[in-house]
Amino acid sequence: MWGLHEDDLGPISLGAAILGSGGGGNPYIGQLRVRECMRAGKTVRVISPEEVRDDDLVAVCGAMGSPVVNYEKLPGGDEESAALRELERHLGRRIDAVAPFEMGGGNSMAAMVVAASAGVPLIDGDGMGRAFPELQMTSYLIYGAESTPSALADERGNLLVFSDVADACWLERIARAATVAMGGHAGVVSTPMRGELCKRVIIPKTLSLARAIGDAVLAAGRNGNEPSNAVLAVTGGRRHIRGKVVDVERRNTRGFARGSIELKGIDADAGRTVRIEFQNENLAIFEDEKPSATVPDLITLLTTERGEPLTTEVMSYGVRADVLVLPCHPLLRTARALEVVGPRAFDLDCDPVLLDEPARQLTGPFSKAN
Amino acid sequence: MWGLHEDDLGPISLGAAILGSGGGGNPYIGQLRVRECMRAGKTVRVISPEEVRDDDLVAVCGAMGSPVVNYEKLPGGDEESAALRELERHLGRRIDAVAPFEMGGGNSMAAMVVAASAGVPLIDGDGMGRAFPELQMTSYLIYGAESTPSALADERGNLLVFSDVADACWLERIARAATVAMGGHAGVVSTPMRGELCKRVIIPKTLSLARAIGDAVLAAGRNGNEPSNAVLAVTGGRRHIRGKVVDVERRNTRGFARGSIELKGIDADAGRTVRIEFQNENLAIFEDEKPSATVPDLITLLTTERGEPLTTEVMSYGVRADVLVLPCHPLLRTARALEVVGPRAFDLDCDPVLLDEPARQLTGPFSKAN
Repeated sequence: MWGLHEDDLGPISLGAAILGSGGGGNPYIGQLRVRECMRAGKTVRVISPEEVRDDDLVAVCGAMGSPVVNYEKLPGGDEESAALRELERHLGRRIDAVAPFEMGGGNSMAAMVVAASAGVPLIDGDGMGRAFPELQMTSYLIYGAESTPSALADERGNLLVFSDVADACWLERIARAATVAMGGHAGVVSTPMRGELCKRVIIPKTLSLARAIGDAVLAAGRNGNEPSNAVLAVTGGRRHIRGKVVDVERRNTRGFARGSIELKGIDADAGRTVRIEFQNENLAIFEDEKPSATVPDLITLLTTERGEPLTTEVMSYGVRADVLVLPCHPLLRTARALEVVGPRAFDLDCDPVLLDEPARQLTGPFSKAN
Repeated sequence: MWGLHEDDLGPISLGAAILGSGGGGNPYIGQLRVRECMRAGKTVRVISPEEVRDDDLVAVCGAMGSPVVNYEKLPGGDEESAALRELERHLGRRIDAVAPFEMGGGNSMAAMVVAASAGVPLIDGDGMGRAFPELQMTSYLIYGAESTPSALADERGNLLVFSDVADACWLERIARAATVAMGGHAGVVSTPMRGELCKRVIIPKTLSLARAIGDAVLAAGRNGNEPSNAVLAVTGGRRHIRGKVVDVERRNTRGFARGSIELKGIDADAGRTVRIEFQNENLAIFEDEKPSATVPDLITLLTTERGEPLTTEVMSYGVRADVLVLPCHPLLRTARALEVVGPRAFDLDCDPVLLDEPARQLTGPFSKAN
């Protein structure tokens, strides 16, 4: 177990936003929430998945909604914690540890706020090793955890419990509709499970990975190296194209930010054009109408110069970006997982196009690595 | 306390549909649900509001959704009972009696199914003395009952509890969105309250009133009398126009059936034209663009010949109908109530136009009257 400090938040939220693959919430707002929490004297304690006890009750938490909404409607800050308290009331027992749904600039931080407020440890890992737009798309649910009971809360005091659902996709559908009715943003605590299951199915050490990525990008900036090379050195994967955004098609429908981004290659990539489809997160790169990378691998865009992660909602004409394809975790590459997080699960009519090598495994938590 | 029999269902659902003011659900489907329940050996017991004990815990139940949906998607039948069981689990105690949200062909019957399934009495009364489209529009909530906890269930096993809401309008908004996500129909059990409050604020004896209206219409049919005159003899009020439907504008939006109906007068009313605005229920009659009757008074349409109540979703070109205006209960005519159920609550830009006399009070339950 180790504690986080205010200084950790910058590199972690930077790395988490890069893992967020265009989604996962706004890193700046996310970071502010944890900072306020720390300045109020609360502590974020982190444990490795192997430190979770078999009989612990673990819950999964994060924000739900279109990330676009957060630019006009800031989170109240206490939504996920209110949902956690309601889930505990419903279960009639305390939660022993929490884990994030996903990595991402916002949702890595939301889980820290919950952990600090509830005084329970945060597990170094998450359910996606990246961000995905829908609740059912976690390794927890793919590998056997129950999606209920789940609790949903907004900043006004509206508080719902999903006692039972037909399946995880129904949880997603109904919770999404409720979130839209709540104004487009809500805190969710879900998927209560035994520690024994959690440590088998969590995508492990992704908070450490986010930290390592963030540190590498910041060091590259200081040393005048290319930020995207620094990311690839940590994660593996490849730079697909260096380009300039020439078109963004965007619509906010049914609680999601959907659309596509078109980039024209620059420098060595001049003459090529790619289109990236997104639903909160980047889903696939198409070049000459053929898919050249798809979910569940990570497609993430960084500004060329400074390595700032570009979430889909801030993408705009003229931005120069490196488009990186990073390998997802092996747990997302099984046939069972590809049914839930492969391209067809997002209504894309193509088979998965994945990197040859899956994600590298980190050997230890970042606190010991630093 | 008295028991209901299969023979009671016809006249009650007929009268309740007339009180439903164009909404309140389909009387035929509603009746089938109770009949199946009775044939399975279950008993519907009814008590007068004065028989409710002060310390009883009363809950309010009914179906939520656009009535149009029920023509393609029949209720499973157990939705409201599943919601009741979940509400009891949440409260950690049993409910002692149930009451309907509203009178209407469907929702008077839905409450009977819940009462029979749970083995608790049904209170002779409801929260509207008619039907209204939104959850917050009950006398229970207008006069101080709490809108939470509430439970929402569909036929697939999806089950939600609203533990807390900012106010009753937020319950309506979020529950409506969840209902739409569930496919447009759900069972709701809500507004748990002490018997002492319930008997002060319930619109009393509306099940008896429905029965008396149903009996009168059926007797008129047997005796060759005009059905609408038979209704008015029981309820007071007036026939506003006898007309032919010449236009129906209809849209199914945000979980409601909305639109307007235009009728041209026939017989003695030839030359006049009226427009009726509806949102599940009929809201107001406009003649020469001036309101001549509005909520909370009841605007209800019967076929001229047979006195069949016309719900807004079955309205069609060429139907000959008597448009009746019936007085609402005095509890809906206070300034406090008019804020919630007056025309401006439905975005109609006019003051209430109400009959001079409020509804007559029945003197006893129908079982003793017959």
